[in-house]
Formats: sequence, C-alpha cells, structure tokens
Amino acid sequence: MTRKVAVFRTAHFNAAHRLNVPQWTDEQNKAYFGLCNNANYHGHNYELEVKVVGAVDEVSGYVIDMKVLKTFIDEEVIEAFDHKNLNLDVPDFASLNPSAENIVWVIWEKLRKRIDNQFELSVRLYETPRNFVEFNGK
Amino acid sequence: MTRKVAVFRTAHFNAAHRLNVPQWTDEQNKAYFGLCNNANYHGHNYELEVKVVGAVDEVSGYVIDMKVLKTFIDEEVIEAFDHKNLNLDVPDFASLNPSAENIVWVIWEKLRKRIDNQFELSVRLYETPRNFVEFNGK
Amino acid sequence: MTRKVAVFRTAHFNAAHRLNVPQWTDEQNKAYFGLCNNANYHGHNYELEVKVVGAVDEVSGYVIDMKVLKTFIDEEVIEAFDHKNLNLDVPDFASLNPSAENIVWVIWEKLRKRIDNQFELSVRLYETPRNFVEFNGK
Amino acid sequence: MTRKVAVFRTAHFNAAHRLNVPQWTDEQNKAYFGLCNNANYHGHNYELEVKVVGAVDEVSGYVIDMKVLKTFIDEEVIEAFDHKNLNLDVPDFASLNPSAENIVWVIWEKLRKRIDNQFELSVRLYETPRNFVEFNGK
Amino acid sequence: MTRKVAVFRTAHFNAAHRLNVPQWTDEQNKAYFGLCNNANYHGHNYELEVKVVGAVDEVSGYVIDMKVLKTFIDEEVIEAFDHKNLNLDVPDFASLNPSAENIVWVIWEKLRKRIDNQFELSVRLYETPRNFVEFNGK
Amino acid sequence: MTRKVAVFRTAHFNAAHRLNVPQWTDEQNKAYFGLCNNANYHGHNYELEVKVVGAVDEVSGYVIDMKVLKTFIDEEVIEAFDHKNLNLDVPDFASLNPSAENIVWVIWEKLRKRIDNQFELSVRLYETPRNFVEFNGK
Repeated sequence: MTRKVAVFRTAHFNAAHRLNVPQWTDEQNKAYFGLCNNANYHGHNYELEVKVVGAVDEVSGYVIDMKVLKTFIDEEVIEAFDHKNLNLDVPDFASLNPSAENIVWVIWEKLRKRIDNQFELSVRLYETPRNFVEFNGK
Repeated sequence: MTRKVAVFRTAHFNAAHRLNVPQWTDEQNKAYFGLCNNANYHGHNYELEVKVVGAVDEVSGYVIDMKVLKTFIDEEVIEAFDHKNLNLDVPDFASLNPSAENIVWVIWEKLRKRIDNQFELSVRLYETPRNFVEFNGK
Repeated sequence: MTRKVAVFRTAHFNAAHRLNVPQWTDEQNKAYFGLCNNANYHGHNYELEVKVVGAVDEVSGYVIDMKVLKTFIDEEVIEAFDHKNLNLDVPDFASLNPSAENIVWVIWEKLRKRIDNQFELSVRLYETPRNFVEFNGK
Repeated sequence: MTRKVAVFRTAHFNAAHRLNVPQWTDEQNKAYFGLCNNANYHGHNYELEVKVVGAVDEVSGYVIDMKVLKTFIDEEVIEAFDHKNLNLDVPDFASLNPSAENIVWVIWEKLRKRIDNQFELSVRLYETPRNFVEFNGK
Repeated sequence: MTRKVAVFRTAHFNAAHRLNVPQWTDEQNKAYFGLCNNANYHGHNYELEVKVVGAVDEVSGYVIDMKVLKTFIDEEVIEAFDHKNLNLDVPDFASLNPSAENIVWVIWEKLRKRIDNQFELSVRLYETPRNFVEFNGK
Repeated sequence: MTRKVAVFRTAHFNAAHRLNVPQWTDEQNKAYFGLCNNANYHGHNYELEVKVVGAVDEVSGYVIDMKVLKTFIDEEVIEAFDHKNLNLDVPDFASLNPSAENIVWVIWEKLRKRIDNQFELSVRLYETPRNFVEFNGK
C-alpha cells in the first residue's frame, strides 16, 4: 500500500535587488514599480519553503532524506543567493527582472534538476511575511 | 512559455461579532454556539491571506501588481470590516451568521468582482491562530 | 546559592470592546479614539504573557508550578474576559475605559492577589501583534 | 447553492522519539538517521494542523462544529501522544519507525475513523518550524 | 495614583546595506565582516519595535496616542529607510557603518527628538528573526 | 561617547527529558510533575535566545562579532544538547532535574565562561511557545 506524503523543508537567504525592466524608460519603471525601482537597491530576508511529494519508503519511513534535500537547497540556492545582489551577482537575473515570481521560478528550475522525477516539487518564497509566491512547475 | 505562479497578499482587520441563528431559540443558540453566542459580542484580530493564481507577464515579471491587489483588499474588505461589529455594521451579515465560513465567502465574493477572471482566486481567513478557513469559489 | 529565574506563561482570550470616555462629547471621543470609538464595538484576540520572577527551588527545580500559575490565569482572567464584551460584561470596566493600558493593569491586580509576594509579577498584553503593553506594578 | 469551505484546527503535543529500523544494523541506522538515531531518544514540540473540507450548512454557517473537531483531536491524538515516548508508549509505533511521514499517516487514520465521510480530511504535522509533512489520504 | 505602563508599536522597512569600514583594507573588511561585506550589497526585512514608558492618563487611559507614535515612526524612520540603500541613500550612514547596532542607535536618536522627555524610549530592531539588537539611550 | 547596545542571537535544539526528583517516591513525582514525569521521557524543540550587552565598538560598529557568539553557542550548547536525552546523555543533569529553570541556568554558566566579563549576559529558553524562562546570572 503506497502512501504519498508531502515533506517540507525551509531555508532563508538575505539579498538585495531592484525591480527594473531595461526596455522601459526610467519614468515607466518608476511609475510601475514605485519604491521597488530604487536605483541603489533595497533588500529582503527571503524565506523559502520547499515541498516534495512522493511515496513513503516502507522500510525507512522517509519520502526523501531531509539531510539530502537540505544539501540540494544549500548548494543550489543558498550558496548562489545568500548575501548577494540578485541583479548584479546572480547570472540568472542578468536579463530577468528579479520579481518574487521570477525568483521562485529560477529556484524551482535549479532544484528540479537535483530532485528525482518520481517526486513532485513545489516552491514557496516569502519576500516579506505579507507578500509571497508559489510555483509548482505548471 | 507560460508559467503560472500563485501570489499571496496578507491584510488584517479587528472586528466584533456573535454567532446566532435568528430562527433558533436562545437555548438552541447557546447550546450550539456556546461562548460565541454571547449577546454582547466578542471579537477577533482577523488575518486575511489572498491568493491569486495567473500567468507571469514576461516583461514585468508580475502576475498582478501587488499594489493594485492591496487596493482591492483595502477598498472591499478593510474599509468595510475593520473596527466594525460584523452583525450590526456590515449589511452582508444582516441575515447571515458571521461564522468564519460565511465571512470568508463574503470576502471572496467581494474580491472576485474586482479581480480579472483570467486569475484564480482563493481566500484564507484566520479567526485566531488556531482556527482558520479557506474558500476558492467551488 | 539562590538563583532568581523569570518564568513566563502565555494565554489568550477573544473579546469585544470600544474606547470611550463618558465625560467627553461624542465628537471628542470620535476625534480622539477614531475607529476604536465605534459605538457597536470591535474586537481582538488578546495574547497574554505573564512573567513571574523568583528563586528556583533547589529540590523541585521550579520557581512556581506552571500548572498552578495556569490555574490562576484561567480563573482570574480567561473566565472573566474570554468571549466577553469588556465594556458591558466585565464590571472592572464599568467606569474605566478598556484601553490596553487599563486592561493590563486590571489583569496585573487580579493576578497579584493570587501570587505569593515573594514573587515579582509583570504582565504583557498584545492587543494585536503590532500594539502591545506591559505593566510590572510600579 | 452549496459552497465548500476548508476549516482548519491546530493542536500540539510534546513527545520523545528516535528513528530506527530494527532490521538494519546499528551502523546502518546511525549512518542513515544520524543524530535522530540517538538510542536514548530526543524530542519535539509537534504542531498539528487538521483540515476538513465540506459544504457549509446554510442554517448554522458551519462546515463542522470546531468544538466537536477539537474533541476528536484531543481524544485520538493528544491523549495518545502528548508527553509520551512514541517508540515505547504508543502501540502504533511498536513496529513502525516514528518518522514524521509515519506519524502524520497514523494521525490521519485515527481522525478519519471519527470524521464523517462527507468531509475530506488532510493533516499537516510540524516536527520543527523547519521540517513538516502533510498527508491527505491518497 | 500614577501607574507607569510600557506601550509598544511595531513597524517594518526593507533595505539594502553592506558592512564596511573605510579605513580598513578590502582584505580586513572581508575577513571581519565575511559575506556581509559584499561590495554589491545584500538586504533585510527590518522589523522595528518601539517601546515608550510613561504614566497612564487617568481620563483617556492612554500613555501616548498610538496613532501619534505611528506618525513619528513613519516620518522619522519608514520614509527615510524603507526601500533604500542604507549606505548610499541615507545620510546618517555616509560615514557610519550600518551595523544593526548603529542603525538602532540612529533610529533611537531620530525618535527621541519627537517624543516628549517625560517618556522613556527603547528601540528593538530585528535584522533577521535570528539576529536583533536593542538600545535604550544609555 | 560610549553607547551600550544589547545584541541577541537565537539557536535551537531538540531534546528528550523527564522531570523527576530521585529523593521523592514515584507517587510524589507523579503528583507534582504530572505528565512531565513520564518514565519513558517526552521532548521539546527548545528555542534559545542569548542576549549580550556591551559598548558598541566605534570602528567596527559591533558589540560582539555575531559569528563568534554563534560559535560559542554551537560549541557549548548545541553540540552538548541537540538530539540528546538531557537526563541520560548530558552530565550536567545527572543529579539535577532538567526543568526549564535548571536548563537555562546550566546554559548561562556554560556561555558565561566563554564571553568576556565586560559583557552582561542573559539567556531566555522557550520550552514551548507557551512556557519559557529567563536567567541573567543574579
């Protein structure tokens, strides 16, 4: 009898960013993104919640080893994003606006490559406790 | 390539209410709703979590402008409910028992009228950190 | 060797109230208290944090039995305030404006009578996660 | 017009456990479960979130009486698990490794027997704020 | 009979910063501040907790009008710091390293000028949920 | 001009324990400690908050290097207590009842030895979000 359980692991990183669309004028960017367009950047404590759904192994009682999942998150996300300027230091955002929607997508893509396809993957990203996003690959 | 992302925005309001079914006797109401039936009302810090699911705009990197979503929530919910008595001050509950289940439905209806139909809408309402409800229109 | 340790116990109650000074006119009350003056009341999930400081008993390792402290809080505060209208249902506020500052004082007085004078007592009361008060008897 | 609303109720219990697979050697268990395999046990403040989905009763405005749901949780989970050693004191784990995935499954089974089949049931269990699991019966 | 009560009001701002001492070499700065020295900045969701201690007014039941206190915080701190780069956009940090210790001091000085001297003032600043600081003017 | 700032650093550990006084009979222990006396142990996610008060260094802007403080906490507390049975695995509690009051005292003593005496030290320990203790060495 196979049971599917979702397991969640959290992590966090602190980063600077600004929202800006290069093909728009400064006025357009300022009008659309407001304070988030500040040329000198602002920043957040991003809180990450990674959800992996799969069958529970009947011997170990695990869906996936959380220590292994933590290593994937550390290597793919924390080392790349923590204490960085997303616009300047992270190549993924060289030409992609680092909105929460785009950041969660980039994180999902990075983790998807490391997590076996037998597992479903969903990622939630808190930009602040009041604004957050979720992507499940669809 | 279209990606669908869920974006969440939180808000809060403080309100008084009582649970009471007019067609029941006082004894029936007291027996069923217990302390929540107190004739002089009690109250809560309601915490609201609005979820909007839609395609990410490839230029702006937004699903929906959070500032616009915040305006909808402020105009439809906070102005109508904050520092109010739900039973006496909010016409939606003139003949509808303001249970958390009914409040979340009323909020969903109010927001649905303001949010474009290309977006899915779901609303979660915390009456306390221990009791909460969610409605997605189905 | 006597060590003094502070022990904290939390509790919560949900209540309605309004802020109003009877000797002021309606206009004065509305101007000063704003939305909090709503004649039909509003409400909160009040979170209470009771701090008791005393010497650690060398045999039991306790400052005070938390189960006893919980009983004091339940009997003095929760039974009197939970699911009540503070203005109408609680005699302490018959002629005392139920501001957070006054509620925390009333709670402190009620608990002080039950807790042995060898212990210092301080009470913190969260009206919302953004507004809170503290009173230590001085 | 039937509306389906999800209602959530939280609870908590404090328990000791260790992760161990009897058919494995001590070395295998230590290598796989790490610190969680400690022979003398460790423990957690488990936080439980029970989700029940059903139609809102048009008269009462309730999906299910939360006081009844709380009684089910208290009787089935809290009395059985709180301040217990899951491996030694809880028969469900006599031959089942008390991983979070297995605990959430056992809780779901216990609650499913008490909650009418017209309702969907899902259970989330926080082992720590950083590690949690969810099971919905599928 | 005068009672002194502490009232607390919270606020938040999102900002970028880097830790750097101009009179040190790059190597010294990197060695001492580690990732926090990143030349392109990183950022935080700063959470602020302002504590004001004073006598409760016997008529109004207030220590200080929270709406007035909120205005002081908005004008002195949020407008100056929110969605800013502390090093580049905030003159206070032109030659002062924006460590949490220095930020909380600057905030305290700004608020002290606005709050009547009959009140004691203390400020707590969360840089992350895991790192925070407090300053009371001494 | 010397300013004294308090800096706080949090940490957490998961441990099993039981409350028991060897010189008391089983009946006395059960009557006094209730469920916490369970012979097979129960457990908690302990959350630790370490407060260090000292002068801000005018060059670095630090009271104490948080990375150094984190190392002290990891070496003295986390390595000794995390995923352990406090009664069986931690020599400090071989003959000392591991009540929260005694645990916070033991942690304070361990950290006091590592932190320079120019700094004041205070430790808060959450056994659960509802029960916590604080010790400052007096």
